[in-house]
Amino acid sequence: MAEKLTLALDAMGGDHAPDMVVEGVAMSRERFPDVRYLLFGDRALLEPLLGQHPELEGMCEIRHTEERISGEMKPSQALRQGKQSSMRLAINAVHEGEADAVVSAGNTGALMAMSKFVLQMMSAIDRPAIVAYFPNREGETVMLDLGANVECDANNLIQFSIMGAIFARTVLGLQDPIVGLLNIGEEELKGNQNVKAAHTVLSQGILPFRYHGFVEGDGIHSGAVDVVVTDGWTGNVALKTMEGTANLFGTFVSRSFRSSLMARIGYLFASHAFGKMKIRLDPRHYNGAVLVGLRGISVKSHGGTDALGFSTAIAVAIDMVNNRFIENIREQMGKLDPEQIETLLAGVE
Amino acid sequence: MAEKLTLALDAMGGDHAPDMVVEGVAMSRERFPDVRYLLFGDRALLEPLLGQHPELEGMCEIRHTEERISGEMKPSQALRQGKQSSMRLAINAVHEGEADAVVSAGNTGALMAMSKFVLQMMSAIDRPAIVAYFPNREGETVMLDLGANVECDANNLIQFSIMGAIFARTVLGLQDPIVGLLNIGEEELKGNQNVKAAHTVLSQGILPFRYHGFVEGDGIHSGAVDVVVTDGWTGNVALKTMEGTANLFGTFVSRSFRSSLMARIGYLFASHAFGKMKIRLDPRHYNGAVLVGLRGISVKSHGGTDALGFSTAIAVAIDMVNNRFIENIREQMGKLDPEQIETLLAGVE
Repeated sequence: MAEKLTLALDAMGGDHAPDMVVEGVAMSRERFPDVRYLLFGDRALLEPLLGQHPELEGMCEIRHTEERISGEMKPSQALRQGKQSSMRLAINAVHEGEADAVVSAGNTGALMAMSKFVLQMMSAIDRPAIVAYFPNREGETVMLDLGANVECDANNLIQFSIMGAIFARTVLGLQDPIVGLLNIGEEELKGNQNVKAAHTVLSQGILPFRYHGFVEGDGIHSGAVDVVVTDGWTGNVALKTMEGTANLFGTFVSRSFRSSLMARIGYLFASHAFGKMKIRLDPRHYNGAVLVGLRGISVKSHGGTDALGFSTAIAVAIDMVNNRFIENIREQMGKLDPEQIETLLAGVE
Repeated sequence: MAEKLTLALDAMGGDHAPDMVVEGVAMSRERFPDVRYLLFGDRALLEPLLGQHPELEGMCEIRHTEERISGEMKPSQALRQGKQSSMRLAINAVHEGEADAVVSAGNTGALMAMSKFVLQMMSAIDRPAIVAYFPNREGETVMLDLGANVECDANNLIQFSIMGAIFARTVLGLQDPIVGLLNIGEEELKGNQNVKAAHTVLSQGILPFRYHGFVEGDGIHSGAVDVVVTDGWTGNVALKTMEGTANLFGTFVSRSFRSSLMARIGYLFASHAFGKMKIRLDPRHYNGAVLVGLRGISVKSHGGTDALGFSTAIAVAIDMVNNRFIENIREQMGKLDPEQIETLLAGVE
């Protein structure tokens, strides 16, 4: 770790980069006054932006490069052709120990592929997973895998559950997170073979978190569990379905408020209350998906976000570093007995 | 088909049966004055209920049985022990040609298992699927499979797409439904092997509907497609996730309206508009999941529904009979060249 906590930022990634990156750093200063930032990107663009924030003097260092990864570039192409890109150089800085984590709002596939290639997998973890969190009825739900792996076996799901629980501790500050396994029924009979096998192991009480059992899709938001574990295919479909349903609902609510003069007047009275609800559900407060299972921390900000959203992704990275996310996973994985798990899994299959 | 369109009703299935079944029939009378109903269940309970509706005189016939399938009964148990149950006898009536379709709000697993056992699969279809529909941004989306099969191969997905398109025609009255295949990206590269293989066949234009290509989870509600095809695992997770997200949103909206005096006053003005939205999204208007692929029509009403919801399930069954759902599938499947599809699939895998 560098002396001061240091973040490598892909200053050119995202629809509103580099402005929102610099503004996001400025918004983070009050909460995290001691963090240093390496801004990878075009000096000619970044210098004037930093010039508008004299308070960031000494906190930011520009690392000039003119190359950047476009939104359309395929992961394989990014790996081959993007070696001097702002994204790649920011990831390299983590690998080389210059920075403690990288944050980018750029091309998701490229960030995942390059992070995996440069930072490499932890030896105890077989597959990486994308983890993120979003509002539920009472607090937040952590969910993984959201799309890193189309297919996952039981062992992958078990490892995801450990990483998810540690994410809930280090980022959401939950002392004793409750983990659930996504299934299409709450009975033990249902589900596919991998889910049933993982359930058998999770039910033994040998893993470092409380296990709730199966949850169905309508349990993701109920608050009954803090962490929902599933394969990347199912997680991605569920995440996007949530987004689509939330959008549909939002459309119907705003259509209702505009549908008549009476409803418009109603909105004048209710707007303060709805404003609070909007803040509670604002996706900018839940911005920051992480590719976990790597030897370094790589945080993906939503591409279309603004400075507020980017500052959330910065906070996720800082929390993970400060609360020793990677060391925690190493420790917990080190306490497991892989033979015991293999024996349990063999008993199911 | 019987002379008059005849429905067999499991009068004892559902949380509010038999009352809501009889009331649901009464609500359906205006729209469908010529339908006959066979009510399977306890005569001692049904007779007084029918006595309150002299207008149903001559439309309903009670078929007495004292047995019923409980909500907790497992499918295998229902098959063995439920041979004289109201649900089973109602299904039998379809098989024996006494009724054109069966509607039940009882135990889902039992209804699926008994329907499949008694009515049997159509020879052209390999696996049944659960199909239903729900509101999207502009109209309705049909989706299948919602949970009949945990795993599906490419051929199953192709057959589901045909049945889904015909469901959209016969129940929603869409002349030219657009079908999409659920995936985790819209690019051809992504997704699992089965989905990619099905996509190749669907893209040939040899099937009897317009094919949109892949849709992601957030496309289910966008209205870009009328029919979303997926395997039963993914469909079930997506459906329940929608329900959970919609509930979460509903909770936040009603909390907002109750959070202050101002917001309560706002609600007084906006309540008419929100009432219309509530009607548009009322699940009772989307009640009626169907197990398709069988030689008979078996409609599952939500167990907790009331008379209005049950009358929707009745309407689904009647539309399917009147618009010749099963004959349509036979016809369309008969026009397919299985060898051509096999060759195409072999080329992908």
